[in-house]
Amino acid sequence: MAADSGPSFETAAARPPQDEVRRIAHRAATRDFGWDGVEQRPYKEDERALYKTVTRQVLFSDPKMAGELRYFEVAPGGFSTLERHEHMHGVLILRGRGHCLVGNEVKRLETRDLVTVPPMTWHQFRATAGEPLGFLCMVNADRDKPQLPTADDVARLERNPEIAAFLNGKPM
Amino acid sequence: MAADSGPSFETAAARPPQDEVRRIAHRAATRDFGWDGVEQRPYKEDERALYKTVTRQVLFSDPKMAGELRYFEVAPGGFSTLERHEHMHGVLILRGRGHCLVGNEVKRLETRDLVTVPPMTWHQFRATAGEPLGFLCMVNADRDKPQLPTADDVARLERNPEIAAFLNGKPM
Repeated sequence: MAADSGPSFETAAARPPQDEVRRIAHRAATRDFGWDGVEQRPYKEDERALYKTVTRQVLFSDPKMAGELRYFEVAPGGFSTLERHEHMHGVLILRGRGHCLVGNEVKRLETRDLVTVPPMTWHQFRATAGEPLGFLCMVNADRDKPQLPTADDVARLERNPEIAAFLNGKPM
Repeated sequence: MAADSGPSFETAAARPPQDEVRRIAHRAATRDFGWDGVEQRPYKEDERALYKTVTRQVLFSDPKMAGELRYFEVAPGGFSTLERHEHMHGVLILRGRGHCLVGNEVKRLETRDLVTVPPMTWHQFRATAGEPLGFLCMVNADRDKPQLPTADDVARLERNPEIAAFLNGKPM
């Protein structure tokens, strides 16, 4: 099942039976960043510690839409998988603050900031501010699978002290 | 130019020279629902009064992305064009409250609510709550042009008193 297939936020949305739900004209926001009729999919903790305390909700996914819009939320101290892929991400921070790595840059994030992840660019989101970091992420419905970094890739990234600090959960 | 071509929120994003800007990894939110490097495009008032006081900002648009994400803001008392088209909309209310029409249903909207506009479904957004109504709208980058209602279409919609009240700016 897509919902259980791994740590990435690149898993394909499981379409049936949510299709009908997603064609409902109006789905009200609920407390604590949920939505009526939207399933909250907690990621299992990954034994390799590739990611930590990330939940996913698929907000829009339909055979007639070329894009998908998902909401991810990282609990305080948590982080998404460090990965890259050919497809792009368009991200809007909907809740809280934190940091992200995109390529060679570590950025501090505030609510409503935009993050663009270009093709084949290492990226990770971290809830570094003692509060949840929630973000919308637009992707192509049809997309490639993410690649995980090798030990060499990580070593190369960590040559940059700012990136090393970020990857260790203590951004400068 | 796409930016000036009309009242619809279906105008294609003007790609160059914003492409490079949109690949910038991080664009900070600014006061009052703007973003660094994102042009705010006020719509001209339409002499046919098809829409009123709507601004548009294209947040994500890239040849590598199959979807586009835009932010529209309707000033208090304003409204978007009543229209329909083959492509779908995926909408998230980012700011304020208001009402929308989708097909035969008028819905009251709160911040973070989701609205799905299926193919060939009449829709309109109205800032009915004395405050701006701002929303994200995901569409296919490749999409058809919107259709405007004929007088007959409007008459048919207004047979429903709830829709008539909405279209007259006073939802029940």
